[in-house]
Amino acid sequence: MASPFSTPEQRAEERSAKRQAVLRAAVRMFNERGFNATLLDDVAASLGISKPTIYHYLGNKEQVLLECVALGLEQFLAAADQARRMSGSGLDRLRHFLRAYAQVNMDDFGRCVIRTGPEALSPEGAQSLRERKRRIDAAMRSFIEEGMADGSIARSDPKILAFTLAGALNWPARWHVAGGELSAQAIAHQMVDILTLGLAPR
Amino acid sequence: MASPFSTPEQRAEERSAKRQAVLRAAVRMFNERGFNATLLDDVAASLGISKPTIYHYLGNKEQVLLECVALGLEQFLAAADQARRMSGSGLDRLRHFLRAYAQVNMDDFGRCVIRTGPEALSPEGAQSLRERKRRIDAAMRSFIEEGMADGSIARSDPKILAFTLAGALNWPARWHVAGGELSAQAIAHQMVDILTLGLAPR
Repeated sequence: MASPFSTPEQRAEERSAKRQAVLRAAVRMFNERGFNATLLDDVAASLGISKPTIYHYLGNKEQVLLECVALGLEQFLAAADQARRMSGSGLDRLRHFLRAYAQVNMDDFGRCVIRTGPEALSPEGAQSLRERKRRIDAAMRSFIEEGMADGSIARSDPKILAFTLAGALNWPARWHVAGGELSAQAIAHQMVDILTLGLAPR
Repeated sequence: MASPFSTPEQRAEERSAKRQAVLRAAVRMFNERGFNATLLDDVAASLGISKPTIYHYLGNKEQVLLECVALGLEQFLAAADQARRMSGSGLDRLRHFLRAYAQVNMDDFGRCVIRTGPEALSPEGAQSLRERKRRIDAAMRSFIEEGMADGSIARSDPKILAFTLAGALNWPARWHVAGGELSAQAIAHQMVDILTLGLAPR
C-alpha cells in the first residue's frame, strides 16, 4: 500500500508545480491588466488560495514579477544558445534566432519581459531587469555582427539593424492575442521572412 | 503711432501661438512622464501660467491630450497624402510614406500618438483615438495593397506585413532620444532600407 507521506522528491515536485501554477496565473494577469493594476489577492483568488500562500512560495508582487521575467528571459537565452550551435552563415543563425525570439514574444512569459518597464519596479528590480534585457540584445547583436563579417548580411549600422528587427518582433507582444486565426509560429515565420528578405518579389 | 489695441487678426494669431506653446509643453511632459503622471499644474508652471489659463485655451487634461494626438495624426495623414500624390510603383509610394511615418514617430506629437493607449482615456476619448489610429493603418494598408497589385511588392498577408512595418517604425517612439548622434531623418532612411530591401548584400 502506498505511504500517505510524500517522499522528499515528491515534495520538491509538488512545490515546483505550485510555484509554476502561481507564476502562470500571475503573468497572465500582469499582461492583461498591467503590473500596477494587478493585485496578488486576485491572483490568489483565481487559484483558490490565499495571498500568504503566494508569499510563501514566491514572495511579494515584485518578486513574482521578477520570477516571471526570469522565466521569459530563459526562453530568449535558450533560443540564442540553440541558434549559436547551428551550422550555416550568420544570416542563417540570425533567422533561426529571430523566429524563436518572435515566438517567445507571443508567449506569456516572453510577453511579460517586453511589457515590463523599469518604472514599475524598485531601483534594484529595475537594474536587474535592464541587465537581463541587455543580454538578449547582446545575443541579437552577435548574430548580426557575425553575418556582416561572413558576408551574409549587408553592412549597415548594427545598432539600428538590431533595433529595427527587435522593434518589429516586439510589437506582437502588445497586440497578438493567442487563439487568433494564425498560430504564433506562422506569424513568426512570415515576419522573419519580411524582415530578412525584403519586400521585392522573389 | 501704433495702436495699443490688437486687431482681430493679431488676437487670433496670439491665441493660436498660446495654444501651440501649451500643447508643445504638454506633449513633452506626456511623453516623458506618461499621461497619468502628468499634472496640468506642472505644464502650466513650466510656462509661467496658471492651470485655469490652460482650461481657457484648451480644456481639461484629456482634451489637451486629444489635441496633441490630433496634431500628431495630422502629420501622419499629411505624409500619406503626399505619398499618394507621388508617381511610381506602390513600393515607391510605400517607401516614401514609411520614411515620413518613421520621422513623425520620432517627433513630439507623433510619439504621443504611438504612446497613448486607450486605457488612459474616457470611453469617448478612447473611441476617438482608436478611429484616428485606424485611418493611419488604412493608409499603410492601401500602399501595400497597391504594391501587391502592381507587382512591386511580393504577395504575402497584407495585415502581417503592415504590422511588421508599423511595429518596427513605432519602436523608436519608445526609445529615440532627440539629439542623439544620428538625426531622425538618417534613422528613418536606414530603417526603411532594412525593411524594404532585406538583409542580403546588394
